[in-house]
Amino acid sequence: MGEVAVGDRLRVAVVGATGYTGAELLRLLVAHPRCELTAVVGRSHAGRPLPEALPSFAGVLDHVTVSAFDEADLGSRADAVFCALPHGASAEVVAALRAEGRVVFDLSADFRLHDLEEHERRYGAHPAKALRAEAVYGLPELHRDALRSADLVAVPGCFPTAAVLALAPLLGDGLASPEGLIVDAKTGVSGAGRAPSAATHFSEIAEGVRAYKLAGAHRHTPEIEQELGAVAGKPLAVTFTPHLAPMVRGILATCYATRLRGDADAATEAARARYADSPSVVVLPAGSTPGTEAVRGSNRAFLSYAYDARAARFIAIAAIDNLVKGAAGQAIQCLNVRFGFPEGLGLGAPAAWP
Amino acid sequence: MGEVAVGDRLRVAVVGATGYTGAELLRLLVAHPRCELTAVVGRSHAGRPLPEALPSFAGVLDHVTVSAFDEADLGSRADAVFCALPHGASAEVVAALRAEGRVVFDLSADFRLHDLEEHERRYGAHPAKALRAEAVYGLPELHRDALRSADLVAVPGCFPTAAVLALAPLLGDGLASPEGLIVDAKTGVSGAGRAPSAATHFSEIAEGVRAYKLAGAHRHTPEIEQELGAVAGKPLAVTFTPHLAPMVRGILATCYATRLRGDADAATEAARARYADSPSVVVLPAGSTPGTEAVRGSNRAFLSYAYDARAARFIAIAAIDNLVKGAAGQAIQCLNVRFGFPEGLGLGAPAAWP
Amino acid sequence: MGEVAVGDRLRVAVVGATGYTGAELLRLLVAHPRCELTAVVGRSHAGRPLPEALPSFAGVLDHVTVSAFDEADLGSRADAVFCALPHGASAEVVAALRAEGRVVFDLSADFRLHDLEEHERRYGAHPAKALRAEAVYGLPELHRDALRSADLVAVPGCFPTAAVLALAPLLGDGLASPEGLIVDAKTGVSGAGRAPSAATHFSEIAEGVRAYKLAGAHRHTPEIEQELGAVAGKPLAVTFTPHLAPMVRGILATCYATRLRGDADAATEAARARYADSPSVVVLPAGSTPGTEAVRGSNRAFLSYAYDARAARFIAIAAIDNLVKGAAGQAIQCLNVRFGFPEGLGLGAPAAWP
Amino acid sequence: MGEVAVGDRLRVAVVGATGYTGAELLRLLVAHPRCELTAVVGRSHAGRPLPEALPSFAGVLDHVTVSAFDEADLGSRADAVFCALPHGASAEVVAALRAEGRVVFDLSADFRLHDLEEHERRYGAHPAKALRAEAVYGLPELHRDALRSADLVAVPGCFPTAAVLALAPLLGDGLASPEGLIVDAKTGVSGAGRAPSAATHFSEIAEGVRAYKLAGAHRHTPEIEQELGAVAGKPLAVTFTPHLAPMVRGILATCYATRLRGDADAATEAARARYADSPSVVVLPAGSTPGTEAVRGSNRAFLSYAYDARAARFIAIAAIDNLVKGAAGQAIQCLNVRFGFPEGLGLGAPAAWP
Repeated sequence: MGEVAVGDRLRVAVVGATGYTGAELLRLLVAHPRCELTAVVGRSHAGRPLPEALPSFAGVLDHVTVSAFDEADLGSRADAVFCALPHGASAEVVAALRAEGRVVFDLSADFRLHDLEEHERRYGAHPAKALRAEAVYGLPELHRDALRSADLVAVPGCFPTAAVLALAPLLGDGLASPEGLIVDAKTGVSGAGRAPSAATHFSEIAEGVRAYKLAGAHRHTPEIEQELGAVAGKPLAVTFTPHLAPMVRGILATCYATRLRGDADAATEAARARYADSPSVVVLPAGSTPGTEAVRGSNRAFLSYAYDARAARFIAIAAIDNLVKGAAGQAIQCLNVRFGFPEGLGLGAPAAWP
Repeated sequence: MGEVAVGDRLRVAVVGATGYTGAELLRLLVAHPRCELTAVVGRSHAGRPLPEALPSFAGVLDHVTVSAFDEADLGSRADAVFCALPHGASAEVVAALRAEGRVVFDLSADFRLHDLEEHERRYGAHPAKALRAEAVYGLPELHRDALRSADLVAVPGCFPTAAVLALAPLLGDGLASPEGLIVDAKTGVSGAGRAPSAATHFSEIAEGVRAYKLAGAHRHTPEIEQELGAVAGKPLAVTFTPHLAPMVRGILATCYATRLRGDADAATEAARARYADSPSVVVLPAGSTPGTEAVRGSNRAFLSYAYDARAARFIAIAAIDNLVKGAAGQAIQCLNVRFGFPEGLGLGAPAAWP
Repeated sequence: MGEVAVGDRLRVAVVGATGYTGAELLRLLVAHPRCELTAVVGRSHAGRPLPEALPSFAGVLDHVTVSAFDEADLGSRADAVFCALPHGASAEVVAALRAEGRVVFDLSADFRLHDLEEHERRYGAHPAKALRAEAVYGLPELHRDALRSADLVAVPGCFPTAAVLALAPLLGDGLASPEGLIVDAKTGVSGAGRAPSAATHFSEIAEGVRAYKLAGAHRHTPEIEQELGAVAGKPLAVTFTPHLAPMVRGILATCYATRLRGDADAATEAARARYADSPSVVVLPAGSTPGTEAVRGSNRAFLSYAYDARAARFIAIAAIDNLVKGAAGQAIQCLNVRFGFPEGLGLGAPAAWP
Repeated sequence: MGEVAVGDRLRVAVVGATGYTGAELLRLLVAHPRCELTAVVGRSHAGRPLPEALPSFAGVLDHVTVSAFDEADLGSRADAVFCALPHGASAEVVAALRAEGRVVFDLSADFRLHDLEEHERRYGAHPAKALRAEAVYGLPELHRDALRSADLVAVPGCFPTAAVLALAPLLGDGLASPEGLIVDAKTGVSGAGRAPSAATHFSEIAEGVRAYKLAGAHRHTPEIEQELGAVAGKPLAVTFTPHLAPMVRGILATCYATRLRGDADAATEAARARYADSPSVVVLPAGSTPGTEAVRGSNRAFLSYAYDARAARFIAIAAIDNLVKGAAGQAIQCLNVRFGFPEGLGLGAPAAWP
């Protein structure tokens, strides 16, 4: 690929390009009108043509070579860098890139939690504590202003994106109580990444649904609580139950909240008002039941609200593609905000449905 | 098939044999050591060899002919009849068979609800009101004694089986409050039956998860509330959210209940005690996360309990095969109880896993 | 949408927009830099907002209303029209639009076969015989020159696209014999369209693979034979066996041909030479085994050649997305050729993988 | 489990019980009226309760403990042993068990090929050459008589079972030529076993179909050729193309053979005559298109024949469950033959469909 003159285009690089999130970043970036992909970094396949690692890029990026990580080289070739590495591994790469002055969009969990103790309980010792203060949580619908000047963006987890978008309007507008929140989420298997394991082995999971990491054991729990607590203005606890469903992509978060006032229409109104500036949130008519297939491959979150009057409880549903609005697309949405591009630039495509 | 001498075997017939529940009844009955299948009745395919309607029976029941419904004929050929017809259609057939003195296991919703008003609100006018009084709800784990002398058994719906088995120990033993119950259930597509529709069209649903019939709109809601209310000793409301997952069989019910006392181990103990007599309930160690694939094709319900201390909430999980413990297998379990056979007779097979 | 000034953009309409092929045309056209979508026509949902028919367009084409067909109106609003209607129904609409002078891309089978007798044997009486002469078969890789001036383009079927692309290099360069060709194809379910049926009912097909329409019974057989016969320079017969696989999209055609000369490398070379001008064909290294998931949502055909020396037989494999290179994308590729745009314009996106 | 008095029951053990084939052997053996399962051996999970390794056996074999392999112990506890180990590993275990005088049903490839050179080319050096002479190929439909006295049975591979059953009637009765045979097979993922890999990773394969090991590279090729060559009375070559389909179980083999005489009805007749004694083969009416879901979990092979007159070619289709008729069920069928039980004993269940 080499050094290229890019005119008014932003030079961007992807580190960790050969995983699922990395592949999705590449797919979206090659179509982005203001970004020029100048480096594709991957630990496996370094020195090899990209399609050997990602066959779907045959005929698209045939002449791109995967390179090994070199912060000085990246620093000279890219203005902004997406890091799609596992937590722990990411922080060090981020630190090196920040030392080179690059703007970094980190898709790992390393800079998401404000509470260091909670972070270390969930993920172990933090390898780059000093950088934590400058990180901005990359959910544009909640932190748009802070993102405009962020040099380190902690792109949210896929479950928190869905849960927080669904519940924030209820909490932020006082429709629901911060006590007693439940998030029952169903995810596709791609959220587990590209490394084979028993939990992602086709024959073990293709014909069933199962919960995992019950009762707060999932690492995304504190992230959901941090963001919703900020909206509610007080700490809160969420009962979060992730489930694995036999599909590749998608998260459906079915959220339950005790009503304080209002009904499904009021909730729908509140969500529309709250997300009026977002090109990525679609608030459906009250009582809708979106399927994740309708957002597959797109950067949209479909939200829907219902109200169970007999139990005085709201049901808030969010459907997203875990790899797009839950990862790569959201990262690019943050980049758009950070660099002053239209927020939805390069992210407008609908799902490839069916 | 014709009239056969069956020695000490019970003569049984299946009405509505060419649907999914009917097929499953046939599969289980041909292996039942004390039942002799003496009639296979189906509206479609009457007069045709059974494998034309159900290809999986080629080589098994090649010489069985599907017959049209004739209550007098059935009355003379069968001691017990399973009705696997749609609600509404079933009640009239049941009435005709009861008039012939046959013991009937009705897999429709026609005789499940005690509250006639609720029934008619959900299903329309009841075509056989007089028979309602003699119906016993066919969940052996809750109504074993009444089933011993029942001549009309209302076999439960698939969702109620899962939800009630999961929550009954918490309510019955005072571990959880009857206020604030939530059942978030995920079902395979076979629960929708064999008739094609947009909601069961492969390309529409194979790559997504979606909720449907929110906020009490699903007809199984009052059935769940009736049975759990009886266990709790007072009326209660349940927020029930069914979801359609891209798999053929299986229901996973993830249930949430506010704690009054105890923890996951106490819940596990309570469930083991309550279901000690059932050959069909397996209570897994606390915190287990069963997948529906592990009960696929079997008559077992796998139950598991967790406790979210921060939210003072129990998570109770049930995994069943909707067509077996949620329908055909449960009906045969009821027959075993009714006719004094060992309750698990013919129902011992494990899942065909993977 | 209405009448819009479109500058240097081509005004295009889609008739039959609410089926799967129609949806895919819309998805691709909204991203096409030189096309302006000026009408969306559908029999169902006429007068309703498009997202009611196609939920994936919520947030994308919210304000587009589905309109009923009116050839005069369409004639004034669009320069080019895509017809994604069932065969038979399409020919009359095409005729009306041609009478208005519009350039038509017909995705039905109505104008594909040169042999009228064969057409009528397969599809019944032809409703617009007079137009047949002007139709050009819309496979740009074989008919690029003729397409440049075509006013009626018969866009190929999905199976013929895969089979013809795979086998043409072997026949055209004399590597394989036109005798003894076999095409064993595996298709996703979306090829059967959006209308529910037993053959597309999730529970019937989600866990199995099956052949259908054996021994030349499938209507795409003569289309394959017509195109390959033209390449070979003589009539030929193909044993074509379509199979339905439990996936939404994709066709994998595994083709067998008796060797006359050369080996896998020679076949690979021949294919690369033949398709050098196509932006949509990727010839992989000899012996590759592409999966259809790698072209899902993209307009690419991945081709691969192997040679079984012991049997003196070539194995030629093509992987395409039946809705894109097998339908909507190919139609747009034809439009690009017809209107002098770069052939791959708007069609460059890689698959959304995984 | 321990030493048990088993009356007239045969004491059987399963080695390699915690893989998919092992699990299926256990499932079938617990229901077999003449077998008593006396040992369950597995390398992983030795000393642990079986349901920890195989969750589907919770509530079924709760008190069975997985044991480590010990030939002397097994020799004293079991009359017959099933070995479900990987090739190479199996031969040594088989040798130890044969030295103890046990009858062994080996589900690996170690004793299937008569040609040692071919075996070693495909699988490496053979660790137990001396035993090869006594092995009988365990396809009862072809080798019933030899199996009656076999002490070492080499249970066939899943692909050869399907291909050989489909093609043997055409070759054995001179309907088709031994020249030019093609087997295009589609398999579910469980055939790859329980060890996670990229090739079985859900997200990589759930939405596509792909071929693998083209042009004779698959190790089952010589096995197919050996058996069909014996039927044809002369050596022959088969072009065998396996494909991986996104389903857990099932093999559909679509086979092509050049006609010498007869048609689809003649082929159907020939197959019915040839397999008249088999309880496991169902020959469907000519032109049928069985889906693998109809044999899922059952020990049946569904066969069907069509004839493409224009190409003078037969299409022979076989549908089996790779884990049952393609492995565990077939092994038990061999045991039934060997020990004089009815050949279909314990194997009569239809598929759990849908």
